[in-house]
Amino acid sequence: MQNIESCITANDGMAGKQSVIFSKPVYLTGYVSIVGQKEGQGPLGKWFDEIIEDPMVGRDTWEEAESELQARTVSRLLEKSQYKKEDIRYIFAGDLLGQLIATSFGLEKYDIPVFGLYGACSTMAEAMSLASVCVSSGYADNVIALASSHFASAEKQFRYPLEYGNQRALASTWTVTGCGAVILSSRCNNAQNGRAIRITAMTTGKIVDYGVKDSMNMGACMAPAAADLIASNFTDLNVTPDFYDLIVTGDLGSVGKQIVLQLLKEKGYDISNNYMDCGIEIFDSAKQDTKAGGSGCGCSAVTLCSYLLGQMYAGHYQRILFVPTGALLSTVSYNEGKSVPGIAHGVVLECVNPAGKEAM
Amino acid sequence: MQNIESCITANDGMAGKQSVIFSKPVYLTGYVSIVGQKEGQGPLGKWFDEIIEDPMVGRDTWEEAESELQARTVSRLLEKSQYKKEDIRYIFAGDLLGQLIATSFGLEKYDIPVFGLYGACSTMAEAMSLASVCVSSGYADNVIALASSHFASAEKQFRYPLEYGNQRALASTWTVTGCGAVILSSRCNNAQNGRAIRITAMTTGKIVDYGVKDSMNMGACMAPAAADLIASNFTDLNVTPDFYDLIVTGDLGSVGKQIVLQLLKEKGYDISNNYMDCGIEIFDSAKQDTKAGGSGCGCSAVTLCSYLLGQMYAGHYQRILFVPTGALLSTVSYNEGKSVPGIAHGVVLECVNPAGKEAM
Repeated sequence: MQNIESCITANDGMAGKQSVIFSKPVYLTGYVSIVGQKEGQGPLGKWFDEIIEDPMVGRDTWEEAESELQARTVSRLLEKSQYKKEDIRYIFAGDLLGQLIATSFGLEKYDIPVFGLYGACSTMAEAMSLASVCVSSGYADNVIALASSHFASAEKQFRYPLEYGNQRALASTWTVTGCGAVILSSRCNNAQNGRAIRITAMTTGKIVDYGVKDSMNMGACMAPAAADLIASNFTDLNVTPDFYDLIVTGDLGSVGKQIVLQLLKEKGYDISNNYMDCGIEIFDSAKQDTKAGGSGCGCSAVTLCSYLLGQMYAGHYQRILFVPTGALLSTVSYNEGKSVPGIAHGVVLECVNPAGKEAM
Repeated sequence: MQNIESCITANDGMAGKQSVIFSKPVYLTGYVSIVGQKEGQGPLGKWFDEIIEDPMVGRDTWEEAESELQARTVSRLLEKSQYKKEDIRYIFAGDLLGQLIATSFGLEKYDIPVFGLYGACSTMAEAMSLASVCVSSGYADNVIALASSHFASAEKQFRYPLEYGNQRALASTWTVTGCGAVILSSRCNNAQNGRAIRITAMTTGKIVDYGVKDSMNMGACMAPAAADLIASNFTDLNVTPDFYDLIVTGDLGSVGKQIVLQLLKEKGYDISNNYMDCGIEIFDSAKQDTKAGGSGCGCSAVTLCSYLLGQMYAGHYQRILFVPTGALLSTVSYNEGKSVPGIAHGVVLECVNPAGKEAM
């Protein structure tokens, strides 16, 4: 198998037009996922660290509930990975709400410097990318990257009051209630079965707009950005799809999945054998009536921080390209008749042995 | 005078708890500011690159007007500093609108990878910090950092319809219509009078909440975060206030100014002799009826990218601590009775000779 380090180009880690290979190691030293009841009942239920039955998470509003999800995730992450909050230099975090209020009120008690990010549902990869840059450059020892979403706060923000009980379009998706977070570190202290996980590369996305205006079909809005990002990653790193054991998009759902496969085929890449979408995996769409699948920043974040990392530590996947995808709209832009551009960011996760060499 | 490089601690640039000193140089190689009519009529009018008389900037909605402001700023920045868009590896950008729609629609045509940021009105320093990390780490040669705001899109987002003609509180501020952007680069190609400007350090802010709930008095909401950031910068870099020729906050206005001076005094620092606030300088508040001053991400961004950088190149300031400040609220959090936490991020700008040594 090709080793990612054989792809390192000149220029201190810059690879191609929009990728970076992290020559100085960035280790994943902690991860946690906390989800709501519906996600807990889905196919990935057993992989999550915590399932919270109360949709209000003990608080008074949907927004506070999402903040509380973030707070619980950070506390549990520190506890599980045995870090004190003083060990964490930065948090890179975001959510879907206007002015990132879930993040501001969720993280304020930790007294850790915060970089607020907005990449719609691509935020988890944006956070992991920038966290990796900080660690790899030696400007931080330990950094948290985090993203959350909440079904009810997102419906209130983007769609209809829940009390309307409005019908959902077949192409629509169900916002995941959940928060996923990782700790990225310059030193590895958590090898499992002789395996450690490194973030070895990032590919940063452009805004891609095919002019789709249907906010109830976000898979179609985001798929072109996902295809563009995945193809750029292949070109920049000079690899073919089989370089990865798995290529994972965030929340394209069943409609977006077909489009991304088709668009990549047109670019000459067949990823159908090693492709999955977190939005499709997280719910049993037929039984749980989630239409095209799950969505939201939390969707890819919790799928990564449960099933995917679990499978990597178990030795089932050696190298993953993780590509959360975001639909760039607000109710204002939508009501003013604008299209819904997409963006995707990608990070490469790789199993290594604790000394930093490729595992197995 | 103390040289910042004498403050470099161990650990590859990490300084104290929340600062980084960029040992590998980050040069400011381009800057542009574009503002609206009212800003053009203010005391800094002659310093701006362009004053746009039409508040709609030739477009149909306030949000599109702000996007157009961003687009014009990037185009002019590339032209003025003689870069092609292909030379720019990333744009770090943000605005105040929900889901960053001014940024998404403003930057999509450039086909440059984008990191979307939200730090409320602190966004310009957040963007410059992360851009500096990317350049200093060798992961990018040239990066744009940008922030914008627009009076009318902000009023629509946060306050009342303009048609109401509502009364403005004395402590309220006037959102600046403007966009400021810089190019940060690994190589210096634009020395003026033997002077180049480097970003030599960053201090990243925590969320600071003193429980203030008055969204018409954002200066009071943000001042504690500004004081915390400035004091942390002094501690982390082991310097005293006179290390800087100027300490600049973003948009505290006349109310917040008094609070930040007082809070710093209580911490043992007197910055009254070398302090200024962009929100106070940008308007003639008595003549222009802007109450406590200017605000918005654009306020600090355009003041930096006009007057402040102009004064540095003219040799009047050798070293500036630039501290934009943000109020973390949305209409939802406000209407749900939440407080308005603040955040501030800081970057240190320093005149050097083109070979990278301290100028003069």
